[in-house]
Amino acid sequence: MDNGGLSRDQWRFVGNELLTKASAVTVRGVLNMLIENLNANDSRPVIPLGHGDPSAFPSFRTATAAEDALCSAIRSAKFNGYSSTVGIPAARSAVADHLSKDLPHKLSPDDVFLTIGCTQALEAIVSVLARPKSNILLPRPGYPYYEARAGFSHLEVRHFDLVPEKGWEVDLEAVEALSDENTVAMVIINPGNPCGNVFKYEHLKKVAETAKKLGILVISDEVYDHLTFGSSPFVPMGVFASIVPVVTVGSISKRWIVPGWRLGWLVTNDPDGILRKQGIVDCIKGFLNITSDPATFTQGALPQILENTPSDFFEKINVVLGECANILYDRIKEIPCLTCPIKPEGSMFAMVKLNLPLLESIKDDLEFCRKLAEEESVIVLPGVAVGLKNWLRITFAVEPSSIEDGLRRVKAFHQRHTKKQ
Amino acid sequence: MDNGGLSRDQWRFVGNELLTKASAVTVRGVLNMLIENLNANDSRPVIPLGHGDPSAFPSFRTATAAEDALCSAIRSAKFNGYSSTVGIPAARSAVADHLSKDLPHKLSPDDVFLTIGCTQALEAIVSVLARPKSNILLPRPGYPYYEARAGFSHLEVRHFDLVPEKGWEVDLEAVEALSDENTVAMVIINPGNPCGNVFKYEHLKKVAETAKKLGILVISDEVYDHLTFGSSPFVPMGVFASIVPVVTVGSISKRWIVPGWRLGWLVTNDPDGILRKQGIVDCIKGFLNITSDPATFTQGALPQILENTPSDFFEKINVVLGECANILYDRIKEIPCLTCPIKPEGSMFAMVKLNLPLLESIKDDLEFCRKLAEEESVIVLPGVAVGLKNWLRITFAVEPSSIEDGLRRVKAFHQRHTKKQ
Ligand SMILES: Cc1ncc(COP(=O)(O)O)c(C=O)c1O
Ligand SMILES: Cc1ncc(COP(=O)(O)O)c(C=O)c1O
Repeated sequence: MDNGGLSRDQWRFVGNELLTKASAVTVRGVLNMLIENLNANDSRPVIPLGHGDPSAFPSFRTATAAEDALCSAIRSAKFNGYSSTVGIPAARSAVADHLSKDLPHKLSPDDVFLTIGCTQALEAIVSVLARPKSNILLPRPGYPYYEARAGFSHLEVRHFDLVPEKGWEVDLEAVEALSDENTVAMVIINPGNPCGNVFKYEHLKKVAETAKKLGILVISDEVYDHLTFGSSPFVPMGVFASIVPVVTVGSISKRWIVPGWRLGWLVTNDPDGILRKQGIVDCIKGFLNITSDPATFTQGALPQILENTPSDFFEKINVVLGECANILYDRIKEIPCLTCPIKPEGSMFAMVKLNLPLLESIKDDLEFCRKLAEEESVIVLPGVAVGLKNWLRITFAVEPSSIEDGLRRVKAFHQRHTKKQ
Repeated sequence: MDNGGLSRDQWRFVGNELLTKASAVTVRGVLNMLIENLNANDSRPVIPLGHGDPSAFPSFRTATAAEDALCSAIRSAKFNGYSSTVGIPAARSAVADHLSKDLPHKLSPDDVFLTIGCTQALEAIVSVLARPKSNILLPRPGYPYYEARAGFSHLEVRHFDLVPEKGWEVDLEAVEALSDENTVAMVIINPGNPCGNVFKYEHLKKVAETAKKLGILVISDEVYDHLTFGSSPFVPMGVFASIVPVVTVGSISKRWIVPGWRLGWLVTNDPDGILRKQGIVDCIKGFLNITSDPATFTQGALPQILENTPSDFFEKINVVLGECANILYDRIKEIPCLTCPIKPEGSMFAMVKLNLPLLESIKDDLEFCRKLAEEESVIVLPGVAVGLKNWLRITFAVEPSSIEDGLRRVKAFHQRHTKKQ
């Protein structure tokens, strides 16, 4: 091949392999592989139960009030300029008020840092905590983006289990056993991705007490906040901030069903000023100084988005999600090779265990998902992508008719692949 | 202080000082310091000649066509979901076509990666190039964000000079002298920030030949592309991609006067496939896999923004900028302590040299700017913030009446501080 007469090694630049490594096992990577396995000759619609983005379904169209707020911020021409790196004051203040409604303490606008989705919030806190030799405790199963960012930042990862028999509660004994003097934080995701669980008040309190005992901070990923439809109400971790400092990350992506709008926040619940004293707050600002910002007009629209979205929008979304979760749970019971330990009470996902010995020549979750995509045009995420081999993560945030259709196909798949006795 | 009975060192987490260090000397940091020096009792309006964001001025309101495109993308509800990490196909394709107009080769959509402003594009390429022991060559004066990101990524920085006597051309001998076997890339900014220069075709060709000889890639920051109003037309560096691989970074921030919209691109001009072979392309994708994305609806609007903005919008902006540059240049000539080596022909800035011996008790550029803010409510950036001590970077991208007013005040300031003979 002609490359201008230069041989490869005359060029001195080479890509940083850390980047390809850190991004190797991402949810998107695995899903892309499955999508490539779809059978183009199957005339049925593909049922996407793999990822958490229902925005394309009619039942999950965002609130008109949110669209209105965004368009009028744009039309005002007041938000075309750069924002400050921490976010514009009106938006910080609106998030502080919004989240304070569920907290015993009142957040100040200075506790709120606006980010490009919850994604940038977790990038920020992982970067802030990544010092030589430090380690962070992550849940298994979990959200693999934390592992990817920690890997990129040379922050060591240790995993504690979520226990299916206890409704996916944190194994707090494991947390204590894993932690040492270099442990700086633990992450919880509530409502849970991938488990669809909602932590109870008492359990969160124990999490706080354990973290306090260990001297570590709690990062609470509440990107699915208020997406609950079971018996457990959503309790923000910030409620326990007088026990242990809490960094809450969240966004409008899930509750408003607008993951493409890219607006999130990192919030310090720090009534005793510990995060400030330990330099965490300055480093969050430092991180935001050297990264890009969320669009200024989206920040400008945020007060109206938070205020004007009618409560029946949220109620309707939770009704649909609850209905879909019920369908999923009931249909799973009819499929012997699958077990769902608890009915999902929040978020958009359920973890389902595979009973492989019942199946003929399917060796693991990855093969199950690959064949399911190929034969039934149904996409579900193999558990290995979220840290739990031979489980599946199934999204129920789709049109109710699609979840029915999808699970019918999974049942047919099961029947076709059942081992003959 | 009561922090819940815990002494400071019972907490194991501490912020990563790399972040506060990397963001210590940023343009925004210095400007904030100056703003704090403003005199609240001065009833005159503040004249902001410090930063490159004219979006708040009536003469610089963005095109209605761009606002329309954005609002209709939002109203369509087709762009509420996650985008792919490299950008949505229609937007990549639109940028490829848009930039190809000025190039001898046709860019493919696969050459285009959409980013959160030009900022994220340069974050990406700096992260991709940051391997142990590598170094990168940056211009002095320059845009300090490159230094900040390189510092954060442990990429060694070496500076070559831009030569005022040669219209701020690159000192190519210095580039050769600085580079060694660990040098991976050089950065040029064209049209120039902070110098307001526009590189000529012949000079860019020499840059390409020098880089080829050294085996390094050229990063061409063209965030001010087509903002030109002098005798030199804008020539994209990609024109020379058959000599040396070029990574172009840019955005809609400056040309459309919407820095708050946060949409940019990283483009590989790589007709010989060298960037691909060296793993740069895979690492760019890897970086984008583990970072946040630009808003999907802004990507969705991009084809219309690029296509529907009438050419007279751009012409009018360049006329106003040219007018402001003239005023600045002419007024500077009337102020003995200031010299502007060349009249700006592009971007939004001029570099102006301070003749300190003419002034009474002003020891450097920082003090000049601090006193100017305090006494005259005019903000200009001290050169030290862009790498050139005892120079000033003056923005002329403001309302023409404001630049007149601002320079009148600078003249008065000069007269008041002139040394008595
Ligand atoms: C647990 C968790 N955290 C963070 C995110 C990222 O959220 P955002 O889209 O707001 O960046 C997701 C997205 O799926 C998630 O599931
Ligand atoms: C030279 C240069 N590069 C990049 C940027 C960042 O551009 P954006 O606002 O599109 O992120 C700027 C902004 O001022 C700049 O001056």
